Amino acid sequence: MPITWANLGVDLHLDQSGRRLRAGLEHALRDAIQSGQLHPGARLPSSRALALDLGIARNTVAEAYGQLVAEGWLAARQGSGTRVSDRPAASPVAPSRDLPDPTLVRYDLRPGRPDLAMFPRAAWLAAARRALTAAPYDALGYGDPRGRPELRSALAEYLSRVRGVRVTADRIVVCTGVVQALGLLFQVQRAGGRQRLAMEAYGLPDHRQVAVANGLRVRTLPVDAAGADVDGLSGVDTVLLTPAHQFPLGVPLSPDRRRRVVEWAVEGDRLIVEDDYDGEFRYDRQAVGAIQALAPEHVVYAGTASKALAPGLRLAWLALPSHLIEPMTEAKRLADGHSGTLDQLTLAELIVSGAYDRHVRRCRLAYQRRRDRLVAALGDRAPRARVTGIAAGLHALVELPDGRREQEVVAAAAGRRLAVEGLDEYRAAEQRHRPALVIGYATPPEHAFAAAVAQLCTVLEG
Amino acid sequence: MPITWANLGVDLHLDQSGRRLRAGLEHALRDAIQSGQLHPGARLPSSRALALDLGIARNTVAEAYGQLVAEGWLAARQGSGTRVSDRPAASPVAPSRDLPDPTLVRYDLRPGRPDLAMFPRAAWLAAARRALTAAPYDALGYGDPRGRPELRSALAEYLSRVRGVRVTADRIVVCTGVVQALGLLFQVQRAGGRQRLAMEAYGLPDHRQVAVANGLRVRTLPVDAAGADVDGLSGVDTVLLTPAHQFPLGVPLSPDRRRRVVEWAVEGDRLIVEDDYDGEFRYDRQAVGAIQALAPEHVVYAGTASKALAPGLRLAWLALPSHLIEPMTEAKRLADGHSGTLDQLTLAELIVSGAYDRHVRRCRLAYQRRRDRLVAALGDRAPRARVTGIAAGLHALVELPDGRREQEVVAAAAGRRLAVEGLDEYRAAEQRHRPALVIGYATPPEHAFAAAVAQLCTVLEG
Repeated sequence: MPITWANLGVDLHLDQSGRRLRAGLEHALRDAIQSGQLHPGARLPSSRALALDLGIARNTVAEAYGQLVAEGWLAARQGSGTRVSDRPAASPVAPSRDLPDPTLVRYDLRPGRPDLAMFPRAAWLAAARRALTAAPYDALGYGDPRGRPELRSALAEYLSRVRGVRVTADRIVVCTGVVQALGLLFQVQRAGGRQRLAMEAYGLPDHRQVAVANGLRVRTLPVDAAGADVDGLSGVDTVLLTPAHQFPLGVPLSPDRRRRVVEWAVEGDRLIVEDDYDGEFRYDRQAVGAIQALAPEHVVYAGTASKALAPGLRLAWLALPSHLIEPMTEAKRLADGHSGTLDQLTLAELIVSGAYDRHVRRCRLAYQRRRDRLVAALGDRAPRARVTGIAAGLHALVELPDGRREQEVVAAAAGRRLAVEGLDEYRAAEQRHRPALVIGYATPPEHAFAAAVAQLCTVLEG
Repeated sequence: MPITWANLGVDLHLDQSGRRLRAGLEHALRDAIQSGQLHPGARLPSSRALALDLGIARNTVAEAYGQLVAEGWLAARQGSGTRVSDRPAASPVAPSRDLPDPTLVRYDLRPGRPDLAMFPRAAWLAAARRALTAAPYDALGYGDPRGRPELRSALAEYLSRVRGVRVTADRIVVCTGVVQALGLLFQVQRAGGRQRLAMEAYGLPDHRQVAVANGLRVRTLPVDAAGADVDGLSGVDTVLLTPAHQFPLGVPLSPDRRRRVVEWAVEGDRLIVEDDYDGEFRYDRQAVGAIQALAPEHVVYAGTASKALAPGLRLAWLALPSHLIEPMTEAKRLADGHSGTLDQLTLAELIVSGAYDRHVRRCRLAYQRRRDRLVAALGDRAPRARVTGIAAGLHALVELPDGRREQEVVAAAAGRRLAVEGLDEYRAAEQRHRPALVIGYATPPEHAFAAAVAQLCTVLEG
């Protein structure tokens, strides 16, 4: 086999003089053209003349010229030698502004994130090793848009056991976060002429934005102590709910409303999207099972690894009614082929080995303790604030003492480098709940939790 | 701390009799309702009566009833006891058909995939361990939609060194495969009123489908031995090209056309999308640098890990002109937040440590050898077939002997359990190239390559 660039390679930096010289010459010429030292149309010395000047082989110069011609920097015309291309001067690459950094905060009680210090790095790496070592070759290729069968099977068993979901592996689509899952679902609904979506009056602004970006018309449902008011669903095709633990108000959907919304869906052949974002975390009793089990053909169940493991994994899943399997598979294929397989294989291994259950139990205990400490501290040191909602999830609604305004409290907290969010950040309708903070008690690392809660109490009583 | 479900957990299967009995009772009742044994409206025995019947504590029954009421299976009304809900009967979950499996093939010379047996599992796992061990907590949370800064920095250096791309980390967006990268770019172009896209007359059908799905109007450019004919761009806003190695024809875009398309873009403030899907694999000479370097403000450079590592990773990247950074960041955020961070951190570690370069060199050598073997075998045993295109990439265009038709050859190959693809699969316009196969010589594992090529020769001469 002849020696070529392929098996020697400039990136080896072998001291093969001709090659090094040629690369250096190319580099110098490119720089000179980019910087304007050599302007468009400028004529270069002949390869012979330049070779003599530089004391190098003529071939080296000729090859460098040839490369730059191929790249478009130079133009060679019969009879007129080699010139700098008349190509438009390349615009200088100005460093563009970085996106805003998160403000520097010392204590963080904003909701939406688990304690990232609890991510089981060692267990994850061990599972990744087992999974990748055992993975068939095809796991590394292009695959089923729904995701790896190993993960879909593991999830079907897990969701059935832990959340009562009635699902088989073929009905599961693994997505890059719930945001993508909802986006694809909204696309499919819109393509099917089902453009009218109802969402809870308090919820994640991102979900609303995704719905609007995908062309849906959004109506809001009032939310009260019994969850979303499902009486306002006439003329709606799809409703997005957080039945186990309303986000952010923290209440479950009442049994009566659960029944009624399922009736609404089945009778009119409509769709419920059940966002079960923190269904594994209930502390005072066994969690209420998924609504999906009541009507698997009319409910899309959405779950995620963002709360039990880490949002950075971007792993979420949908359990679909049968009529949505094909359109959702196609939507996912057109969106990105499928989600990355290595993390899917690792999560499957984690679930099947039992390590995921152990980790969830550990988190559940830790977050229950934090919630208890938060409630106790507020009771002692900020008794005019009131924690509402059920003992569940990773956040609590803390209603402000009478007369206090959210913005003022958030600003006072910021003055102490404590980041908190007012409930109003999540409001999407006229309805106004009384002023409150949405406290994410899972966010700080364990060592910072007590101090963060102390700051919160001070701010609330201040 | 009191003992609760959270810290004991049904999933521990502790032999705590009340809890086990209650779970068993709930399960039996759910099954009876789902199966129709207990029909809607049926009245259940009082908790006292059932407890006596079963010889268990009344509380256990009451709690099970309460759980099923909360889940909507039962309804409890003051004075009328506990009944099965009038909820609509849950539709039976029929197992839906699986998506079609790939046909069983023994020899696979279809294009688009690297040799998955070459994926560096050990190096990947070692890099994953280093990366995850060193990762800051925020790498596990929600992050910059453009992807992890570690990877964007590593890519900026790598792309500049290996492909001459002029880019800084802030201009890179990491996507879930080139399909997503193109989809988001098309969305942004369409939202900006730039709906007219030109594509090469031979190309990936998926890319075309993504363009159409995102609302673009697609025109095709004829392709000849000098690459895409860029004279047909009047009235076009965006052109998608494979300049280094046209897919599937295998020719590079000529220097003259490179210059002209860049002029077209800069003069009319239009956009070139440079799909550099296999730019790292050139065997006969140093690869032609990226067009992007000629006009960084008018070219989007798209690269991928699918050829050098594995498509299953779903890792691709765009180098953007400055005006597209903000809209693309926002489009990516709305699509899925960002791509999963763990594989990004691992790939960054692989690049920075030099392991990626070593792996690419190993692949380059292996694929060059395979191409040489393919060319030699065809020359010896199927001399009427002709390999065209440059010595690059992971595929070769093999023009059929005179008089042979693609479909007939593909069918003959299938009869020998050899999977090949005809060029016509990639045709998107009236223009017809002469009949050919697009041979992916990287696809089979090493041990199967010689036999696959032998089958191909037999089919071509048959």
